Amino acid sequence: MRLLIRNIKQLVQVEEKARRLVSGKDMSVIPLISDAYLLTGSGRIMDFGRMEDLPEELKYSQKGIKIIDASGRIVFPSFCDSHTHLVYAGSREAEFADRIKGLSYEEIAARGGGILNSARLLHKTSEDDLYRQSMVRINEIIELGTGAVEIKSGYGLNTEDELKMLRVMRRIKEESPLEIRSTFLGAHALPAEYKNRREEYVDLVINEMIPLVASENLADYIDVFCDKGFFTVEDTERILMAGLKYGLLPKIHANELAFSGGVQAGVKYGALSVDHLERTGEAEIACLTGTDTVPTLLPGSAFFLGLPDPPARKMIKAGLPVAMASDYNPGSSPSGNMKMLMSLGCIRLKMLPEEALNAVTINSACAMGLSGTHGSVCRGKVANLFITKEIPSYQFLPYAFGTDLIETVILKGEIIKTLSLSKQMVN
Amino acid sequence: MRLLIRNIKQLVQVEEKARRLVSGKDMSVIPLISDAYLLTGSGRIMDFGRMEDLPEELKYSQKGIKIIDASGRIVFPSFCDSHTHLVYAGSREAEFADRIKGLSYEEIAARGGGILNSARLLHKTSEDDLYRQSMVRINEIIELGTGAVEIKSGYGLNTEDELKMLRVMRRIKEESPLEIRSTFLGAHALPAEYKNRREEYVDLVINEMIPLVASENLADYIDVFCDKGFFTVEDTERILMAGLKYGLLPKIHANELAFSGGVQAGVKYGALSVDHLERTGEAEIACLTGTDTVPTLLPGSAFFLGLPDPPARKMIKAGLPVAMASDYNPGSSPSGNMKMLMSLGCIRLKMLPEEALNAVTINSACAMGLSGTHGSVCRGKVANLFITKEIPSYQFLPYAFGTDLIETVILKGEIIKTLSLSKQMVN
Repeated sequence: MRLLIRNIKQLVQVEEKARRLVSGKDMSVIPLISDAYLLTGSGRIMDFGRMEDLPEELKYSQKGIKIIDASGRIVFPSFCDSHTHLVYAGSREAEFADRIKGLSYEEIAARGGGILNSARLLHKTSEDDLYRQSMVRINEIIELGTGAVEIKSGYGLNTEDELKMLRVMRRIKEESPLEIRSTFLGAHALPAEYKNRREEYVDLVINEMIPLVASENLADYIDVFCDKGFFTVEDTERILMAGLKYGLLPKIHANELAFSGGVQAGVKYGALSVDHLERTGEAEIACLTGTDTVPTLLPGSAFFLGLPDPPARKMIKAGLPVAMASDYNPGSSPSGNMKMLMSLGCIRLKMLPEEALNAVTINSACAMGLSGTHGSVCRGKVANLFITKEIPSYQFLPYAFGTDLIETVILKGEIIKTLSLSKQMVN
Repeated sequence: MRLLIRNIKQLVQVEEKARRLVSGKDMSVIPLISDAYLLTGSGRIMDFGRMEDLPEELKYSQKGIKIIDASGRIVFPSFCDSHTHLVYAGSREAEFADRIKGLSYEEIAARGGGILNSARLLHKTSEDDLYRQSMVRINEIIELGTGAVEIKSGYGLNTEDELKMLRVMRRIKEESPLEIRSTFLGAHALPAEYKNRREEYVDLVINEMIPLVASENLADYIDVFCDKGFFTVEDTERILMAGLKYGLLPKIHANELAFSGGVQAGVKYGALSVDHLERTGEAEIACLTGTDTVPTLLPGSAFFLGLPDPPARKMIKAGLPVAMASDYNPGSSPSGNMKMLMSLGCIRLKMLPEEALNAVTINSACAMGLSGTHGSVCRGKVANLFITKEIPSYQFLPYAFGTDLIETVILKGEIIKTLSLSKQMVN
């Protein structure tokens, strides 16, 4: 079934030719067509343009083409969420109150909370149950407009449980219409039984986990939490090198808690992205300039934890591209709402609505290796789109920060959700 | 039709006897019943208790009683939103970018933006269109779990347009299942044509607007924006006195931008609430102590504008009650999402989930004169409730800050929305 979306008020983030990403000043521009149409076929974007240029043969209803009238509505490419940990067991709202009472992330971790708490729970959870719990979150983010998502392991922290997480991701890849990328993050935290034996754990990651992950072809990418209290630059470089032998490109956690050297390590090993970056100075910006590594900001976790925000404006001013991702995880960012993330980008990071939109579409697609097929409205790209309710402009999306404005979700050219069909008032 | 909700995982904010509000240390307690039932009748809460104490006659299906199984779900009293400006025309996302670029609230106002921008647009909008636009927001907040809302005038700023706004509110009262309170806020800003003639505008409010508003019985309460650059304490006292002659209790805007004396003026005239309070010191706290005036915080606007937050912890520590409201308005808080407001209360104001929940239910009910009938689960109170999706605990609500967790909305004992019936995945 092909879809023809007609009378689109604004069709945003359109490209004649697929770009890799958008940097610096270019981030303040969103190419768009007003009063537009868009045609899908075989799950791809076939054509788009102005309504006045609608091809003659599309003016009349045809068998095999479903017509959607989008009058007053805006069509966006689906969000790309390039950094999440959404395969996890349980939730950690009990720690939420601890943090409100003033305990720091490090203190909570030191008390056996944090990531180790999630690891204990995951260990006790069956693969089926973990899949079921994760699919609730997958369906939630689909409704919130996400069309591609990266998911990391890292709540296993032993070979068996890391593989369990990655197998759940494989099953999600098979079952869900979302585009999924999986990342092996064995070095997410040091398990309790390796206390004071960090290098031995790194050896385990390198000598046992990576070869098994690679042999079952379970991961697209590899990640390390390179930060104060977690893994050192040396650990990181050893792990990234071991991963590269198996073709696992790096995407790393860097500079959330300290000037960790993680940005430099990531760039050195050709990371797709370096993520977090709350602590970023001139040296990190200089190091990223002119490279293929996408600085990726996670303002949801800075917001939720009350940490300082990453210096987005400084990065954009320096000509860098900036991506944003949700960091959906039970401890520091229990949300995968990318629309709200745009609001956080605008309100807290002082990004313009255009910059925020580039950050959650084309640039985050690039940060997960998908900008050739996702992240914009371009002929030949996958037809992952959403249609809003009636709203005045695309800037309204981050402005109305608490309102769900997504009416119709289209993934691979199929209508997945229509709010207009559902969510009726009962009376 | 009566409703029997069975197998409720947690029935929260239950009272044997209706309280007026909850103050200081008591705010950290949420009375609840696990594994509970609740029965409604004639739009009221008839009974509730533990499932094991379910009366014999309710154990079997009966004509006239609709049964809802709430296994794994939590039942809350509907939110009370005691401070909004949700009757307005258009939206102001264009100013959003101006503010991101660094313009202040005062600068935007000085450029003819801000409230005066909304007033111009409202003037050109017909009463029918204003009603239609406002009902979109009313239906939105119903879906988000609000059961009672206060709405202010104040985008009219001349007699005719103020009355137009208040008539729209009356129509909303008649047409919507929400409990509505309307507040006359003629002194919201100085209209351009009264520049340098502030006292004359105050005279107009007092001598023309208030008598007309009262004669048509259009407002429940009266409000003044008592702050730097808006109205003085003297203006405020004159207006409140004039309103009191007609029985209009005050609820005032105070101390958002400066130590304005607004808190003291509100308390002096027996205000139901003083709202905003970003600038609150020892003098204001001392003045509020032991009074019937509810300090009401609006963290949505501080969040959206990047202003300093009000000192909620200091107030609670001093033994004061604290209410929270959305401030839903086009300029400084374009959201009426009270669940997200709880998250802002926890994350930014460092309120415990319990304190945040008291602030958006019983205390905000009190701040709009409704704690006798709304804001808790109490026999005889109006059956305004919501049932969540399956979640582990009531603390999960503010924790999962970007997720809509409300599955069923019940207003006056009628089911208004059920997400489980709707929002199905199409494929």
